[in-house]
Amino acid sequence: MDSIEEIDLINLIEKMFDEPAPGLALGIGDDCAAIRPATGFETLITTDTLVEGTHFKRDLTTPDSLGRKSVCVSLSDISAMGGRPKFLLLSINISKDINKTWIVKYLHGFKAMAKRYDCRLIGGNITRSRNLSFTVTALGEVSKGFRIDRSGAMPGDLVFVTGSPGDSALGLDLLNRRGANYTSGERKLIARHQKPEARVEWGQILSSGRIASSMIDISDGLALDLKRVLKASCVGAVVELSRFPLSTEAGKIVKANGAKAWRRILSGGEDYELLFTAPPAKLKALDRFQKSGKIKAVRIGEIVKGKGHLTIIKPEGGELKIKKEGWLYNQQ
Amino acid sequence: MDSIEEIDLINLIEKMFDEPAPGLALGIGDDCAAIRPATGFETLITTDTLVEGTHFKRDLTTPDSLGRKSVCVSLSDISAMGGRPKFLLLSINISKDINKTWIVKYLHGFKAMAKRYDCRLIGGNITRSRNLSFTVTALGEVSKGFRIDRSGAMPGDLVFVTGSPGDSALGLDLLNRRGANYTSGERKLIARHQKPEARVEWGQILSSGRIASSMIDISDGLALDLKRVLKASCVGAVVELSRFPLSTEAGKIVKANGAKAWRRILSGGEDYELLFTAPPAKLKALDRFQKSGKIKAVRIGEIVKGKGHLTIIKPEGGELKIKKEGWLYNQQ
Repeated sequence: MDSIEEIDLINLIEKMFDEPAPGLALGIGDDCAAIRPATGFETLITTDTLVEGTHFKRDLTTPDSLGRKSVCVSLSDISAMGGRPKFLLLSINISKDINKTWIVKYLHGFKAMAKRYDCRLIGGNITRSRNLSFTVTALGEVSKGFRIDRSGAMPGDLVFVTGSPGDSALGLDLLNRRGANYTSGERKLIARHQKPEARVEWGQILSSGRIASSMIDISDGLALDLKRVLKASCVGAVVELSRFPLSTEAGKIVKANGAKAWRRILSGGEDYELLFTAPPAKLKALDRFQKSGKIKAVRIGEIVKGKGHLTIIKPEGGELKIKKEGWLYNQQ
Repeated sequence: MDSIEEIDLINLIEKMFDEPAPGLALGIGDDCAAIRPATGFETLITTDTLVEGTHFKRDLTTPDSLGRKSVCVSLSDISAMGGRPKFLLLSINISKDINKTWIVKYLHGFKAMAKRYDCRLIGGNITRSRNLSFTVTALGEVSKGFRIDRSGAMPGDLVFVTGSPGDSALGLDLLNRRGANYTSGERKLIARHQKPEARVEWGQILSSGRIASSMIDISDGLALDLKRVLKASCVGAVVELSRFPLSTEAGKIVKANGAKAWRRILSGGEDYELLFTAPPAKLKALDRFQKSGKIKAVRIGEIVKGKGHLTIIKPEGGELKIKKEGWLYNQQ
């Protein structure tokens, strides 16, 4: 950094984030933070890293968006267990070419997203590195007995996704083209990549309503993430692309590019939508939530017997084969 | 990495670390880990990053030592609150020039140290980066009412340190000289730098015995870390170097280099010893623990009134001034 000492940055972060919170015994500024987990709950923990060059390019995003996304990526994992996010830790490896203005904008984005999901930053680390990166650890809570693991899918269960997965990867492709004049539809895809949402409320509905039998967030591509569920549950799945909830813009790209576009949609990462399974007996309950606008989920297939095998049926019939199922091998 | 895919590495880590543990509801392999904190305890959380070039040089350490040190750095923060470490998360940013053999050796060192302190790895993240780094998040527990913060020091309290702080910095200086023929004394200093200990048992004694009024671990240099305590507690301190617990080898270096060596000892980081304050009424109890060999701590000074002011008295009398009090501005 050219105009900021790490110590200044720590002081700034302390000022920005030092607020009391329920369950927080000691926040930023000591050797550890201390929390008091509520009785009857489990504590959920997850950590994710965004590295410049690997996960983001500075000329294709803004520091504010990146701050928001850092939070979203980790909260998405809490959502995927049916949990409620509570606390965050942020570790920044700062490269020399980052100035104070940039990092302050990042922190404002981070804070806005944390606030939105009622999360508090309680600690972290600042250090120098040749490569800019952000590691966010999130802590959440879930009532005992309501946690949704990857391993609960059973043959006969139905497979659902929230939102319109694939938009993020298509948006990234558009960004990488570095075009100047995007259509409004294209800008929507780009926004889905740059400013994802964490499906925190939806995850909690699927948990507290005891709807989902298994769940994962789509961070590394739907095909790869679904395979993780299948492997953990020792089952297989058939997904019908005719049921797939394409966004309008993604629909156009599929129409123009066919199987190639489908592969990108199914293997592109960073959707942060929820992929879950539910037994048919839960369909009515899920429908009620859908109709009252509390969740947006679409049934795309069914769980069958089979140790991790995924079959994808094209809209026109016949199987779609995918060689590279995911673009990243991040986990937890 | 030339011969290892991230996915292989994750599988390897799952195999190496997938063991049940008390309080662990769900370990490695899902979106989050889940723990069940015991009633009557607070959960402590801390995170630290070691970056190649900033915190270590690969030619001056071994992957095994670095794995051990990664664990030690974070556990030291749990110790400094009087806590018992329980769980670890490990995020690795892997650069291209790291091969599988190296990383496996690192993991073995990590596991050995985790095992020694009865900690379980429950999650993490693997990603590529231009700069190798390791971020370790540690979770621990402390009985409610027994946590030791930085802010509890009172005028009249005595100041103590464990072990022989400064050895690590002197060892690093020797390493940086890249000499081939170190004396056995020099090798001891080098070992203190490369293979630090986390004072986990000692921290717990100071907590459960209600001895320490404030505590911090010496990670960024005694002078800087003591100042953090003084600032948090709104007090001052006088430290007498005549009382300072120099190791034999550090004593020789001080004899040869005087004030320059003292400055290095007081401002060099990575000791991971404990710096704590205790009221005079606790001296007897502390003595009992000392005599039974359960802790090794030496009184080096006294807390006085004053908002963060530290006075250091040279062995021969007169004040030692230190310009740069610490070499790093990492925190929590």
